Amino acid sequence: MKSSEASVWESIESIRKTSPVVHNITNYVVMNSTANALLAIGASPVMAHAAEEVADMVNIASALVINIGTLSRDWVNSMFKAADQAAKRGIPVILDPVGAGATGYRTETAREFLKAVRPAIVRGNASEIMALVEDKAKTKGVDSTDVSHNAVAAAKGINEAYGSVVCVSGETDYIVGRDRILKVGNGHPMMTRVTGMGCAATALCGAFAAVGPDFVKTSAHAMAVMGIAGEMAAERAAGPGSLQVLFLDALYGLTSKDIAARLKMEP
Amino acid sequence: MKSSEASVWESIESIRKTSPVVHNITNYVVMNSTANALLAIGASPVMAHAAEEVADMVNIASALVINIGTLSRDWVNSMFKAADQAAKRGIPVILDPVGAGATGYRTETAREFLKAVRPAIVRGNASEIMALVEDKAKTKGVDSTDVSHNAVAAAKGINEAYGSVVCVSGETDYIVGRDRILKVGNGHPMMTRVTGMGCAATALCGAFAAVGPDFVKTSAHAMAVMGIAGEMAAERAAGPGSLQVLFLDALYGLTSKDIAARLKMEP
Amino acid sequence: MKSSEASVWESIESIRKTSPVVHNITNYVVMNSTANALLAIGASPVMAHAAEEVADMVNIASALVINIGTLSRDWVNSMFKAADQAAKRGIPVILDPVGAGATGYRTETAREFLKAVRPAIVRGNASEIMALVEDKAKTKGVDSTDVSHNAVAAAKGINEAYGSVVCVSGETDYIVGRDRILKVGNGHPMMTRVTGMGCAATALCGAFAAVGPDFVKTSAHAMAVMGIAGEMAAERAAGPGSLQVLFLDALYGLTSKDIAARLKMEP
Repeated sequence: MKSSEASVWESIESIRKTSPVVHNITNYVVMNSTANALLAIGASPVMAHAAEEVADMVNIASALVINIGTLSRDWVNSMFKAADQAAKRGIPVILDPVGAGATGYRTETAREFLKAVRPAIVRGNASEIMALVEDKAKTKGVDSTDVSHNAVAAAKGINEAYGSVVCVSGETDYIVGRDRILKVGNGHPMMTRVTGMGCAATALCGAFAAVGPDFVKTSAHAMAVMGIAGEMAAERAAGPGSLQVLFLDALYGLTSKDIAARLKMEP
Repeated sequence: MKSSEASVWESIESIRKTSPVVHNITNYVVMNSTANALLAIGASPVMAHAAEEVADMVNIASALVINIGTLSRDWVNSMFKAADQAAKRGIPVILDPVGAGATGYRTETAREFLKAVRPAIVRGNASEIMALVEDKAKTKGVDSTDVSHNAVAAAKGINEAYGSVVCVSGETDYIVGRDRILKVGNGHPMMTRVTGMGCAATALCGAFAAVGPDFVKTSAHAMAVMGIAGEMAAERAAGPGSLQVLFLDALYGLTSKDIAARLKMEP
Repeated sequence: MKSSEASVWESIESIRKTSPVVHNITNYVVMNSTANALLAIGASPVMAHAAEEVADMVNIASALVINIGTLSRDWVNSMFKAADQAAKRGIPVILDPVGAGATGYRTETAREFLKAVRPAIVRGNASEIMALVEDKAKTKGVDSTDVSHNAVAAAKGINEAYGSVVCVSGETDYIVGRDRILKVGNGHPMMTRVTGMGCAATALCGAFAAVGPDFVKTSAHAMAVMGIAGEMAAERAAGPGSLQVLFLDALYGLTSKDIAARLKMEP
C-alpha cells in the first residue's frame, strides 16, 4: 500500500474509532441523505439551526458544516452565530456555497460568510467557486478544461485572501492549499443524477477535517472516499435510485483493499 | 409505435436533451424525493424559498412548481412572489394543492393562489381538486366512480374559471383541458404507500411543461411516465422501500419500448 | 401463538384496517423516512406545523407525534398549540425529546412540554430520558447496565410526575408504566447507522397508540415491530443504505409468522 493509500485508510479508521460529532446547518433537501452519509462513514451527525442552540451544539462538535442550499434570513443568522462559536473553540468550519452565482442572495451570503468567517475549507463545483470571486462568472461557451482552469485560479485567490483550503469538485477534484494542489480522479458520472452528493462530500470534508489537522490532505481524503464509494455503487446500480442505496452501503463497508485498488490521488 | 407513444417519448427525449431547470417551492417531506425524481428523468431541479431570491431563481427556470404540503406564512408569500415573476417571464406555474380540504388554511391558500395566479396546471387527487371549488367536499359515502365524476366536474369548473389544465390523479388520471379530457391508466396501488409520489408527479408535470406548449398533452405525458415507472418498479419491489428505489431507476432508464409496451392513454 | 404475539399481531391488523391518521410535527431530517415508515405499517401520516392549521389537522388525527429534533421558536409554539387541541379531543400525544441534554434549549423545551402537556407517551434513548429529569445526566464513565438502570429510574420518575408511559430505547427497550415495565429485546445494531430510526419508532408509537388504549402495551408493540422489521432487514442488508430500504419492505410485509418467530417481549 502506498503512503497516500495508507493515509486515506488511516483517516477512515480514525473516524470509525472516534465517531466525531459533525454539526450541520444545511439545506432541507439533503438533511436526511447527509446524515446518512455521515453515519455510514462512522461519524455522528447533528443538525440544529435555532439561534437559541447553535452555539451549544457547536460546543459538542468537532467540525461545523455550513451549506446555503435553502438559505433564509434566520438560518443565515444562525450560520454566522455557529461559525463564531466554532472560531472560539478552534474547530474547523466547512462552507458549501450551493448555488452561488445562481441568485444574488446566495452569492452575497456566501461571499460575506467567506470574508467574515474565513472557513477552514470551502467545497463547491467550478461555477460556485468562481462565483465567489468574479462578478460575472463567464462560464458559458467555454469548455470544461477552461472551467477547471478558471475555477482553480479562483480557488487560489480565495486561499490567498482568506486562507481557506478550496476544493473544486468535478470530474477531477482539485484541492487547493497555500503551497500545493492535490487532484482526485475518483467518482462516476451517475452521481450527478442523485441529489445531495455534493452536499454529502462537503459533510465528509467535515468528518475528515475532524480527525486530522492538514485540511488539504483530509479534504482530498474525503473527496476520494466519496468518489470510491460512488464508483463501487455505480458499478452495481441500475440507476440513481439504487446508486444512492449502494453508495451508503459502500461507505459503510469500505476496506483498505478498496482504497488501495481504486484511489486516484495526485501528486 | 402509435402517435401518442411517439409523443410521450419525444417529451422524454426533449427533457433529457435540454435538462430544463424546474424551480420547486415545495414541502419539507418530499424535497429530496422530488429532486431525485426530476434528476432521474433528466431535468435540473432547484429549490429556493427565501423572498430575497425566489424571483432570481425563477429567472433561470423553465417551470415553477408550487406545493403547499407544509405551508407557512413566509413560504406562502414567497410562492406568490415567485409566481408573479413566472407570469412576467411567461413560464408555466404548476400548483399542487396538497391537503386542500383537510384544513381551512390549506383550502383558502390554494384557492387564493388559483385565483390570483391562474396556474398553467393544477395537479391533485380527487378530494383536493374538489376542495378547490366546493365548500364541503362531500366525499364520504360515495364510491370511487362518483368521486371521479365529481372531481372531473370540479376540474372543468376550475378550467373554465381560471384556464388551468387540471390533472385529477387516481387509479385513472383525468387531465382536463378546455375542450378535451385525456385519461391515463398507468400506475400501481403500491405507489400510494410511498410518500411524495403525488408531489413527484406534480414536479414531473413541471418538467414536461417546460418542453412543450400543450399542457394537456404534457401533463398526460408526465402522469403516464410516473405510472409506467411505478408499474415497472412495483413488479420487482418487495414493498414500498424498494419501490421507491426502483421507481427512480425506472425513470432514469425508460426506453421507447417501455412506453410502447405499457402506455395506457386515451382518447 | 402466545398471547403477547397475538396481541402484537392484532395491533398491526388494526392499523392496516383502520389506517389511523397520525399528525407529525417533527424534524426536517426525518420527515420523509417517518412518513414512509407510517405508510409502510398501514397508517396515514400527515405533517403540518403552521400555527394557522395545526389545530385543524389535529381534528382529523388519531394521534399527535411531537419531535423536537430541529426545533425553533415558531415550531415549538405550534407543538404546544397542537398538543392543546389534542388534549381537548382526547387523542394521545407522543413526545420524542431528540437531543435533550445536548443543548439547554432542547432540554428546557422538552421539560416544559412534558410538564404542560403530560404526554401519553415519551420515547427517547437513555441519555435523552435522563436529561428530562436530571440537571446533569452523569452518563460518562458508567457502563451501559448503569445507563439502563438510571434511565429506567428517570422513566419511573417521569411516569409518577406526569403519568406518561416512558419508553427508553436501546439494546433492550424498557417501556415503563405506572405498575409495570415491559421489555423488548428486538432490534439490530446496524439500525443505529441509519438516521431517523428512533424518530420512526416514536411515530410508530403514535400509530399503535391510535388503535389501543393501553399505551404500555401499544408502545411495546411499536418497539417490537420496529425491532423485528429491523432484524429482518439487517439480515439481508449489505449496509445502512439497503437496511433502510429493506426495513420499509419488512414493515409493509410483516406477517403473524414473523411476529411469532421473532418477538422478544417480557414479561
